[in-house]
Amino acid sequence: MKAVVYRGPFEIATEEVEDPRIEKPSDAVIKVTTANICGSDLHPYEGRAPLDAGMVLGHENMGVVVEVGAAVERVKVGDRVSVPFNIACGTCRNCDAGWTNACLRANPSGKPTAGYGYPMMGPYRGGQAEYLRVPWAEFNLLKLPPGTEYENDFTMLSDIFPTGYHGTELAGVRPGDTVAVYGAGPVGLMAAHSAMLRGAAQVFVVDKEADRLALAEKFEASPINFAQTDPTEAILEATGGLGADCGIEAVGYQAHDAAGHEHPEMVLDKLVEAVRSTGRIGVVGVYNPEDPGAATEGAKKGRIGFDYGSVFDKNIAMGHGQCPVKRYNRHLRDLIVAGRARPGAIVSHELPLEEAARAYDQFDKRIDGWTKVLLHPAAA
Amino acid sequence: MKAVVYRGPFEIATEEVEDPRIEKPSDAVIKVTTANICGSDLHPYEGRAPLDAGMVLGHENMGVVVEVGAAVERVKVGDRVSVPFNIACGTCRNCDAGWTNACLRANPSGKPTAGYGYPMMGPYRGGQAEYLRVPWAEFNLLKLPPGTEYENDFTMLSDIFPTGYHGTELAGVRPGDTVAVYGAGPVGLMAAHSAMLRGAAQVFVVDKEADRLALAEKFEASPINFAQTDPTEAILEATGGLGADCGIEAVGYQAHDAAGHEHPEMVLDKLVEAVRSTGRIGVVGVYNPEDPGAATEGAKKGRIGFDYGSVFDKNIAMGHGQCPVKRYNRHLRDLIVAGRARPGAIVSHELPLEEAARAYDQFDKRIDGWTKVLLHPAAA
Amino acid sequence: MKAVVYRGPFEIATEEVEDPRIEKPSDAVIKVTTANICGSDLHPYEGRAPLDAGMVLGHENMGVVVEVGAAVERVKVGDRVSVPFNIACGTCRNCDAGWTNACLRANPSGKPTAGYGYPMMGPYRGGQAEYLRVPWAEFNLLKLPPGTEYENDFTMLSDIFPTGYHGTELAGVRPGDTVAVYGAGPVGLMAAHSAMLRGAAQVFVVDKEADRLALAEKFEASPINFAQTDPTEAILEATGGLGADCGIEAVGYQAHDAAGHEHPEMVLDKLVEAVRSTGRIGVVGVYNPEDPGAATEGAKKGRIGFDYGSVFDKNIAMGHGQCPVKRYNRHLRDLIVAGRARPGAIVSHELPLEEAARAYDQFDKRIDGWTKVLLHPAAA
Amino acid sequence: MKAVVYRGPFEIATEEVEDPRIEKPSDAVIKVTTANICGSDLHPYEGRAPLDAGMVLGHENMGVVVEVGAAVERVKVGDRVSVPFNIACGTCRNCDAGWTNACLRANPSGKPTAGYGYPMMGPYRGGQAEYLRVPWAEFNLLKLPPGTEYENDFTMLSDIFPTGYHGTELAGVRPGDTVAVYGAGPVGLMAAHSAMLRGAAQVFVVDKEADRLALAEKFEASPINFAQTDPTEAILEATGGLGADCGIEAVGYQAHDAAGHEHPEMVLDKLVEAVRSTGRIGVVGVYNPEDPGAATEGAKKGRIGFDYGSVFDKNIAMGHGQCPVKRYNRHLRDLIVAGRARPGAIVSHELPLEEAARAYDQFDKRIDGWTKVLLHPAAA
Repeated sequence: MKAVVYRGPFEIATEEVEDPRIEKPSDAVIKVTTANICGSDLHPYEGRAPLDAGMVLGHENMGVVVEVGAAVERVKVGDRVSVPFNIACGTCRNCDAGWTNACLRANPSGKPTAGYGYPMMGPYRGGQAEYLRVPWAEFNLLKLPPGTEYENDFTMLSDIFPTGYHGTELAGVRPGDTVAVYGAGPVGLMAAHSAMLRGAAQVFVVDKEADRLALAEKFEASPINFAQTDPTEAILEATGGLGADCGIEAVGYQAHDAAGHEHPEMVLDKLVEAVRSTGRIGVVGVYNPEDPGAATEGAKKGRIGFDYGSVFDKNIAMGHGQCPVKRYNRHLRDLIVAGRARPGAIVSHELPLEEAARAYDQFDKRIDGWTKVLLHPAAA
Repeated sequence: MKAVVYRGPFEIATEEVEDPRIEKPSDAVIKVTTANICGSDLHPYEGRAPLDAGMVLGHENMGVVVEVGAAVERVKVGDRVSVPFNIACGTCRNCDAGWTNACLRANPSGKPTAGYGYPMMGPYRGGQAEYLRVPWAEFNLLKLPPGTEYENDFTMLSDIFPTGYHGTELAGVRPGDTVAVYGAGPVGLMAAHSAMLRGAAQVFVVDKEADRLALAEKFEASPINFAQTDPTEAILEATGGLGADCGIEAVGYQAHDAAGHEHPEMVLDKLVEAVRSTGRIGVVGVYNPEDPGAATEGAKKGRIGFDYGSVFDKNIAMGHGQCPVKRYNRHLRDLIVAGRARPGAIVSHELPLEEAARAYDQFDKRIDGWTKVLLHPAAA
Repeated sequence: MKAVVYRGPFEIATEEVEDPRIEKPSDAVIKVTTANICGSDLHPYEGRAPLDAGMVLGHENMGVVVEVGAAVERVKVGDRVSVPFNIACGTCRNCDAGWTNACLRANPSGKPTAGYGYPMMGPYRGGQAEYLRVPWAEFNLLKLPPGTEYENDFTMLSDIFPTGYHGTELAGVRPGDTVAVYGAGPVGLMAAHSAMLRGAAQVFVVDKEADRLALAEKFEASPINFAQTDPTEAILEATGGLGADCGIEAVGYQAHDAAGHEHPEMVLDKLVEAVRSTGRIGVVGVYNPEDPGAATEGAKKGRIGFDYGSVFDKNIAMGHGQCPVKRYNRHLRDLIVAGRARPGAIVSHELPLEEAARAYDQFDKRIDGWTKVLLHPAAA
Repeated sequence: MKAVVYRGPFEIATEEVEDPRIEKPSDAVIKVTTANICGSDLHPYEGRAPLDAGMVLGHENMGVVVEVGAAVERVKVGDRVSVPFNIACGTCRNCDAGWTNACLRANPSGKPTAGYGYPMMGPYRGGQAEYLRVPWAEFNLLKLPPGTEYENDFTMLSDIFPTGYHGTELAGVRPGDTVAVYGAGPVGLMAAHSAMLRGAAQVFVVDKEADRLALAEKFEASPINFAQTDPTEAILEATGGLGADCGIEAVGYQAHDAAGHEHPEMVLDKLVEAVRSTGRIGVVGVYNPEDPGAATEGAKKGRIGFDYGSVFDKNIAMGHGQCPVKRYNRHLRDLIVAGRARPGAIVSHELPLEEAARAYDQFDKRIDGWTKVLLHPAAA
């Protein structure tokens, strides 16, 4: 089959690779109809996270089941499905507790996390390819209504829509709350959309890219361009000096200031300023224990010297980490079908598999308007 | 009346001061039967937190109501009461939400927190004195059974028992959990006691002082002397390599290593190591936005460069801050009366008001066995 | 002042009564700008609930503060305020726990509930009058933006908007849920509106009155006319045979079938049919321990013989009772100000105080289009 | 193999039946070391619930894995395991949400519940036998420490310990609460034990059998013999007239008064009396939609005419139904291993499989001291 293969930093190729097959009775193989490029795919692309040459990329996948193992009954050949980016066994202690992002069994390295085509997530090939093997398919796959409707919405169910929603869950967004989202990339936009779905009274989205802030407005959020306006001042003014009830970090360790310099602690500091006493912060932007390319000595070792004294002083609660997609994707699917959620509104480009190299290049350069790119290896 | 007055760093005097009186219709005045010395009283004592000379000290107070304002009906003269260390108006937005530690109205400075006889907590005199004025008395006072029974247990209801319990709440301790408490001072011991009351399967308490670790055992906890044993290794071994479900920080910014050097990030780092993926950490040990005497340049500005990358990587949730005493003190009182809780077991010394200076001196020097000191200004 | 006075069943008069005044330092007096007639005002009107002749009616009140007692500081003369229908002391055990609907001190009868101008709720005069005394004003009053904007929305904050929202809270409505609301009266409509604000995927509203079902559609709900369609069948079909995730009872003990006969157990039975296994039901429609006018012998004693065996069999959770308005009104106010909530859309009539008798008559007869009546004793 | 077979009402035989075998790749077969007789086994025994003649009885099972299907990897031959009484697929919507008691796929009848050897729970043979087939073994089985230690404690993990705990969860028992448990049978005793583990201040257990009430005291509960004392009066007196915070129904539809007459609504009525305003009731005693042998016409159709008007009036929340064992058994196992829980203290008899008929007879007659009977088909 054809697949998008990682060759090294800034080097991507669409190549012929071996077809996947059923390896265990709990496996399924799907024909991929849509595979998105994710902002975190850029971490290995930029050489910021180590990945073996030859790995098939892609962890945001959906498609149609073409083969199932002997132990797979709930999901059937022909079912249209969304594939959560987390690979989870469904029966370990963390999976039992709903933390499918921290499966204790799926990653042979022993690290409690597994996924497709991504550094440190195990030996699983990605889905930017014609076909994809899905382990523990009965547990992991989410069924979708048959056909091709909502394809661009449903494809957000594998990662970024649940991830944005997870940010609102970690931040405890409740009806009537004011929410400050830092980062108007795809995850930040999904967090803003989720916050509105949960009944937030007002959602601020902070970024410096005009095209992204315009998308935030589409989701009824209030954009703040931090290159022009101090977000802390704007949010304090809008909240009578109290600050936002909830903050969401959707940027991560590579935060850049308006001048383009990297400051790993910048977004956390701004959130601590903008969030009210007794408020809550959900962090879904990625921070790493090791980051040799980091801008500060501390950050190279995962040490982010942000204003933690104020976190204590303001009684702020913080939740962190990757999203357990299965915890949310069913309900988010139902919101799409009901016409209430429309995450596909952020899609900027739809390309065939063969144009992956160009897509990575443009997306990485943050070329204006390249917000979210979908690859379509196969028609449904 | 007689009162314990702050004169400056390492200078305490028991002096005559003006009697308190009803200033507003919502006030009460109590005759203090017991006022504890708290570890955080040592922050100004050591000159580590600024306090005006002449301030009456003491925020852990209980006694008997001797006078009430015209708007106070629920509480009556003669009632035995516990006084939460937080002063809360009972009607602002934070009080409404149960965050009485972050009252928006009680502190004239505008800072959302108020209390008795403590730096930055407002102009309210402390209770290491014969009498104490209690603002918003109807809201703040907790009634106790009349008499003198359980005095040493009830006196822990004003701060450290609820504060330790708050640590378990922030850490989400559930029946069957394994809990790691760092710090075997009074708050850490109360956290360990609380964790057992909530049904923890096993509670580790980490410290280097043998007398304090012995008290931890009294509460059925498993002591770890970090001067002799690596706590991370011990906890990982006891949990099959997974780590504790919950961690509680009961040390704060002045953490010292076994050699006696201050390391503001040390305890957080050890907790991040010891707590399992998807675990939860409750931080009730104090961190400050400003700490001119801190051991590192960052910490002077509240920047604690701990291993935050691993917090994200391990999906750890963290809760922070002072305890809203009223949220817990009623239920904890009932557990004392039912004979299930016995926080008074940590009391090491009971002294008259006149011996306050000696008590501060011995307690500050962490003289062996000076765990928790009660002052008794008056008999009930 | 002028006030709407209860004279006996079906007998209402607008009369001169004595002005209210500050009786305690915690009181305030407000000039009433809007006082709604509530469906539950019809219980005494119809003689179904006992009320003393001479009582001023009205528990859905808002206005402007004209006088405050010595202990009232947070609320000031001139503040525009919403008055929750519950009178709560703010410091008893139930108030502390956020159950202001079950205050243990406000009702001299000892019954744990108090309110204005309503049977069994204490000696407090209602607000269908020019002025109203508000006990524990600092605790009970919710401040509103000054002026007259949103008057018809804000006036729903005293009872029915929070009560409808409470139904969704008791039913645990979460984003993506399917919700079945029985009853399209004002409370049912507010429940439907609240469910959408909380992110429900689909909300069914069941009634037999076309005008009310048309209002349900305004709130994006799906109406079911039970005189024409079996709601259980419709809901099961829409949910793949599973049933709704959540059910809300917004009818109460006087439920009537399509033929107009009263069946006290009817709505509960239909909800148990329509709600899925492991689902949740919130009951805000009123049931009473004593109801001498009930249609069955059991119901006269509060015994409602509904299909409880299926409640157990289906693992259904049920929450019940009056709404603690203060728990929700602040956030709902913010949603109105943000333009996301518009509860005033159900207002059908706005009348001066003098037309109260006619309003009760028309409303009681459920004359088509008399959905929600506001009385305006004074201009703001 | 030998197995306990249902022959008809009051007719039990230990017979040779066909050995179970792996039927699907997700199956396991275990050698049963302990299988308890449950109070609900008496429902078919007494002819009160329909069961096919020839069915092997027993849903409270533990043992050692002797064979696994090709898809079973987490659980291995030789593992000592507890078998939850619910059979759950692990991947349907209810299982995903943690409601393994309401699996949508396991029961071929379509009813959302499945289990072993029990009426209406599917075609699955019970475990009062030498061997037992366990469907979806990787998901359902809980691993235990190897050996034979704690056998009588661990055997309570399959049903009654989690079921009692579920009662406390449905009733929302929190530290410091007062809890009223109705029924001192095995489930009621486990509920009392669980309530204490969760930090209840005081637990009342109401029954009329002296031997059972004596066991309640072993778990530090306060027994009330309702044949001698009115439980409502006793509980109101102990709670200052307020009532218990939480109530647990551990009796079910066959409740008998002191004179031995069946009253299906009796226990619910007494709980509604004994529980405080804003309290919570967890119902784990069984009620059925159909019960042809019921004492009242209503109850035959599942209609239990209890005082529902007071449930509304008192703002009581009620949770209902069978326990999802997997939600709790891991943590309860850890409490046993830690020495904090000792559910095996209720065991009164341990018998070989051959004595099953006598055991059913004695247990059914509620012969004094026959509290909990274990059958040991095989040594571990």
